[in-house]
Amino acid sequence: MSSLCARPIGVFDSGLGGLTVVRQLRRLLPTEEILYLGDLAHLPYGTKSTDEIRRRSGECADFLLKQGIKALVIACNSASSVAYKLLSEKLPVPVLDVITPAVEEALASSKNFRIGVIATYATIESGSYAQSLEARSPDAEYFLKPCPLFVPLAEEGWLDDAIALGTARRYLEPIKKKKVDTLILGCTHYPLLGKVIARVMGPRVRLIDSAIPTALKLKELLRRRKLLGPAGRRAPLKICITDYVRNFARIGEAFLGEELHSVKLVKIP
Amino acid sequence: MSSLCARPIGVFDSGLGGLTVVRQLRRLLPTEEILYLGDLAHLPYGTKSTDEIRRRSGECADFLLKQGIKALVIACNSASSVAYKLLSEKLPVPVLDVITPAVEEALASSKNFRIGVIATYATIESGSYAQSLEARSPDAEYFLKPCPLFVPLAEEGWLDDAIALGTARRYLEPIKKKKVDTLILGCTHYPLLGKVIARVMGPRVRLIDSAIPTALKLKELLRRRKLLGPAGRRAPLKICITDYVRNFARIGEAFLGEELHSVKLVKIP
Repeated sequence: MSSLCARPIGVFDSGLGGLTVVRQLRRLLPTEEILYLGDLAHLPYGTKSTDEIRRRSGECADFLLKQGIKALVIACNSASSVAYKLLSEKLPVPVLDVITPAVEEALASSKNFRIGVIATYATIESGSYAQSLEARSPDAEYFLKPCPLFVPLAEEGWLDDAIALGTARRYLEPIKKKKVDTLILGCTHYPLLGKVIARVMGPRVRLIDSAIPTALKLKELLRRRKLLGPAGRRAPLKICITDYVRNFARIGEAFLGEELHSVKLVKIP
Repeated sequence: MSSLCARPIGVFDSGLGGLTVVRQLRRLLPTEEILYLGDLAHLPYGTKSTDEIRRRSGECADFLLKQGIKALVIACNSASSVAYKLLSEKLPVPVLDVITPAVEEALASSKNFRIGVIATYATIESGSYAQSLEARSPDAEYFLKPCPLFVPLAEEGWLDDAIALGTARRYLEPIKKKKVDTLILGCTHYPLLGKVIARVMGPRVRLIDSAIPTALKLKELLRRRKLLGPAGRRAPLKICITDYVRNFARIGEAFLGEELHSVKLVKIP
């Protein structure tokens, strides 16, 4: 086992949503140390220009590389949309986005090739899910739906009540009518609303939380490159943020599913 | 009447919310030409630093001054919070914010001096409503409540249904229990939800849409300085934006309460 193995996995997002990805990485790769960077000083990325998102993603990647990461996960749909190709070509470590694994998993699991994608307006308008689905399966039919209230619902912690359910019904009924059998949760906030989303979509629709195929793809990649972390430990999680946001601890812990320890404020350009 | 009178009133906001202020200006000062600048390329201001909001507000003011405005209305709570003093000292034309007129009106109309303020997290955390109320009436009791779902509800056009009502109930019941008799709508998006807010608060609570006292204060100021526009015309409204946003026309028309004509894309630094 090379000394590289003990190095951390780097994960970045513009905010705290990426902690839902960390949650699945911790569950599926418990022996991997994780270094998370939340670029809170510059959120949201969704409203920024392509160039600016690429620049910010480059800064995040540079910071994490300097900490000696062995692989990078872009845990942000906006950054995945426009910076994945660039970073995967440029960086000296393997890079994963959250869009490709979700699309691959959706196409692998769909029986009727009718696939729904819910995401923010910014992600849907970027065209990245549509392009990624079309490139891999030109015959699949997909249905995109922006669900802008889901982010504030997740952040308020209104996850499983009449308001969350009513909102989910209003957004999802049109996509349910299209008889999709698979629904990609194309925003890192949405897994928190998984329960009401599942309730509306019904038991025959499979929900894809991108974090899970992303974690599994990373595991396979590390295994193949003999980079898996030392077995038998519960590896630490370190969180760096470029600024505080309101309700940081409450939201962070809800997304991560465990208590926040070791949070460090860092400055990056 | 000086030639200054025929000049437009300048109004700016980071987004389209300020069009609810324009709506009241159009209603209460129908003979005044209005030039609106929506700095959509840089929204939201709420998450920006104080310095950055001041810089952006300065750029917006400069643009409007170059178009020959006779007065300026800062139709944005974030910019009103941190840039009003600076702009009113620096600019050669009278400047109004939206916070001061709302606070003055609330204190003038409250009988029990128990006043509620609902706004975004950013506005409440800026402390500007609390400071403004305290400076004018140290004995008044005020109750602040952030209502983050109200902005996406307004933008989605979900204004008067079960979800809007349920959300309003959850946010407003605690403030209602404080027995306020006056509630300031401290965000330019909130007047769109006025119906459900009124329904939850009940008929004995007066809602203050900042746009109305702001328009009345402007009218009085123009009258005093002999700057009122030529009588007997329905003056034009010109809208400049620094970028397009999704659903621009639908949201803009809902906020403005009339059709959008004469929208121009402009570049400002």
